[in-house]
Amino acid sequence: MTEKSKLSTENYKGVRDFYPEDMFVQNYIFGVWKQVAEQFGYTQYDASVLEPAELYKAKSGEEIVNEQTYTFTDRGDREVTLRPEMTPTVARMVAAKIQDLSLPLRWYSIPNLFRYEKPQRGRLREHWQLNVDLFGVEGSEADTEIISIARTILKTFGAQDTDFEIRINSRKIMNDLYSHFKLNEEQIHKLSKIIDKKAKISDEVFESSVTEIIGGIASDFIWTLKANERIFDVIGRDNPHGTEVIELIEKLATVGINNVVFDPTLMRGFDYYTGVVFEVFDTHPDNNRSVFGGGRYDDLLDIFGTKKVPTIGFGAGDVTARDFLEVHNLLPVYKPSAQLYIGVLGTEYIDHARILANKLRSQNLNVAIDLSNKKVGDQIKTAHKQSIPYVLVVGENEVKENKYTVKQMESGDEKKLSADEIVSYIRNR
Amino acid sequence: MTEKSKLSTENYKGVRDFYPEDMFVQNYIFGVWKQVAEQFGYTQYDASVLEPAELYKAKSGEEIVNEQTYTFTDRGDREVTLRPEMTPTVARMVAAKIQDLSLPLRWYSIPNLFRYEKPQRGRLREHWQLNVDLFGVEGSEADTEIISIARTILKTFGAQDTDFEIRINSRKIMNDLYSHFKLNEEQIHKLSKIIDKKAKISDEVFESSVTEIIGGIASDFIWTLKANERIFDVIGRDNPHGTEVIELIEKLATVGINNVVFDPTLMRGFDYYTGVVFEVFDTHPDNNRSVFGGGRYDDLLDIFGTKKVPTIGFGAGDVTARDFLEVHNLLPVYKPSAQLYIGVLGTEYIDHARILANKLRSQNLNVAIDLSNKKVGDQIKTAHKQSIPYVLVVGENEVKENKYTVKQMESGDEKKLSADEIVSYIRNR
Repeated sequence: MTEKSKLSTENYKGVRDFYPEDMFVQNYIFGVWKQVAEQFGYTQYDASVLEPAELYKAKSGEEIVNEQTYTFTDRGDREVTLRPEMTPTVARMVAAKIQDLSLPLRWYSIPNLFRYEKPQRGRLREHWQLNVDLFGVEGSEADTEIISIARTILKTFGAQDTDFEIRINSRKIMNDLYSHFKLNEEQIHKLSKIIDKKAKISDEVFESSVTEIIGGIASDFIWTLKANERIFDVIGRDNPHGTEVIELIEKLATVGINNVVFDPTLMRGFDYYTGVVFEVFDTHPDNNRSVFGGGRYDDLLDIFGTKKVPTIGFGAGDVTARDFLEVHNLLPVYKPSAQLYIGVLGTEYIDHARILANKLRSQNLNVAIDLSNKKVGDQIKTAHKQSIPYVLVVGENEVKENKYTVKQMESGDEKKLSADEIVSYIRNR
Repeated sequence: MTEKSKLSTENYKGVRDFYPEDMFVQNYIFGVWKQVAEQFGYTQYDASVLEPAELYKAKSGEEIVNEQTYTFTDRGDREVTLRPEMTPTVARMVAAKIQDLSLPLRWYSIPNLFRYEKPQRGRLREHWQLNVDLFGVEGSEADTEIISIARTILKTFGAQDTDFEIRINSRKIMNDLYSHFKLNEEQIHKLSKIIDKKAKISDEVFESSVTEIIGGIASDFIWTLKANERIFDVIGRDNPHGTEVIELIEKLATVGINNVVFDPTLMRGFDYYTGVVFEVFDTHPDNNRSVFGGGRYDDLLDIFGTKKVPTIGFGAGDVTARDFLEVHNLLPVYKPSAQLYIGVLGTEYIDHARILANKLRSQNLNVAIDLSNKKVGDQIKTAHKQSIPYVLVVGENEVKENKYTVKQMESGDEKKLSADEIVSYIRNR
């Protein structure tokens, strides 16, 4: 044997290990996402994290593909990317089977996504993201549904309407604004990147950046963004793209969603949006950031040469969801899988314990048996440390009587029960 | 605009897209895995697919690390591997928190794993695998529990005992056999690889390969593997490692598991096993392969320099699980998320439909609304194509009366119901 060198237990930088307590929160978040998406009739799909690199070169933001993806060459000389977002994947999947799929499609997924960026609060190299998309329907009815889902998720987490704000803009309105100022494509591209960063930079830096891009008209342009309504003075009160957004805000009110504002500085990073874009912002001062974001992308399937499929969708990240739950005191209390822990007074009772456990398991109770052959006090300590709520111990008497003293760990309450009584006793408490 | 070049809709070679029908099967398999693991008191954990490459250099089979992993160098010059198996990850996680974790630990996970190999039936480049591990308990009681879980999963899928066979061997028995034949480390290493392949090669190739490795004693050696009992004639009837395996087989019988055989040719690929190894084989002639495999690895945590933690665990792949369900006719029938589809006789009724849908959703019914503004016949066709079991249509009468005619698509049965009656009607059928 060669001498052992001690291996590090550290994981890869910027990704997370999910120990049971973290996994519990993760499962809770995924569970609410899944429940609400399915309540709205959305069906789950998935794909591999590995995608051909070409997929991202067509329509994602440049920065994302060139600077922020994990892309490598496989042994067959194929360029592979660890997906940085799910939208190109789902567009690819829909395009591949467009002949067989019956539109409209309501689809959701909870993929993990990779970005090669500096880890910081809420931005890791790997995160999970709920993706909800409605394919094949145009107009504000579909937009209303998608935004309703985002809102219902937060309500299901237990949030109040005052805990978040829904911000809406439209790429079409912005294009009308750009036309008004007679901007060229390069200016528009640079400008939209700067507007996207507006909240993170000072007014001075914003102004000087805009001036650098569009020169003398910068102050007029910035003026239009300074209050929500001004943009309509420029593009016209009856501009159809403006009317579309106003109609959407009204429709949301009909289903009781009132915490909505029009925000002309809301850009969203991706190049593929074509109409309404929206974000749901956490209003808590310690977590003032977007928890959901999405928009309409009616042209994305064009890159696959298929017919036009108008689509609106959104994404919601697990890291931001957890931060949201944390600052609003909505995190669930950890519970382990095991509901009952069976201790044994000697290895000769394990067979009995195993048969009892299997009986309870067949009635869907989650039961763990202590196999350590430790002192019974230590066995109960194990259950306590692992937060298992009920304990019973099998010894000579229990084997003779077929009655077991079930102890609730938190209250200390004890009750003598037959195997048949245990499941309903634990269920009803 | 530059001219569009059509992008391929093909996914990366050797991985799968999960369209709703495939995802449904996947969720069914994961659901049974999760349910049974939790019934036995196992708690879920997870980690990233990205791991430092060093992790696999220490203890996995050589072939796996050198020829079969996706390993690349990141922009920070770190060598990263897409995990090819979960055991090194979970060992790393347990070792990292060994001071805080209270042993024994019952942990499970359903990770996706990557292998760079030629895609073939049941062997893709990415697959998902249930991993179930019991940390901190030695001996046949723990081995019995782990094998019971594997068996309970197959029974929960609806399999009969005759549909599969549990094969058991022990690394310790094999080591005693190697000692008996006075083999050196290199011979043992090569020999175990050949025995592992025995079922896939002809007897002639097997014999000549063994002869190449150990020379003249080959025929004596092969003789011991030809019938299950012969190995005990060589290592001794009272050999403690043999007794251990016989005791395990007896214990399995006490919990009703009788389809168990001792198989001295069962090797398992990984180098880290130290005791009992087992596989569950599908007995169906069209799918004669392993659906579960695992074993005892008592020394793996040593590589992290922590105390010894005796462990037994197993893995079960999603691709082989699906194949198993398929050949035994146990696949579930596809159901979409949506239970009820609401058609609308005109866009003016969408608001009413949306309020009705939200009411039903709040009682946990999954409801989709048609927003297409198509003819009502086409709306119902959409529900039919998407296999949604119930449909109702909202028009002038429904808005007036607040009564809705709910149609069961399969039988054609119709019933007029109020909003409050719909949920229980659909639930009870």
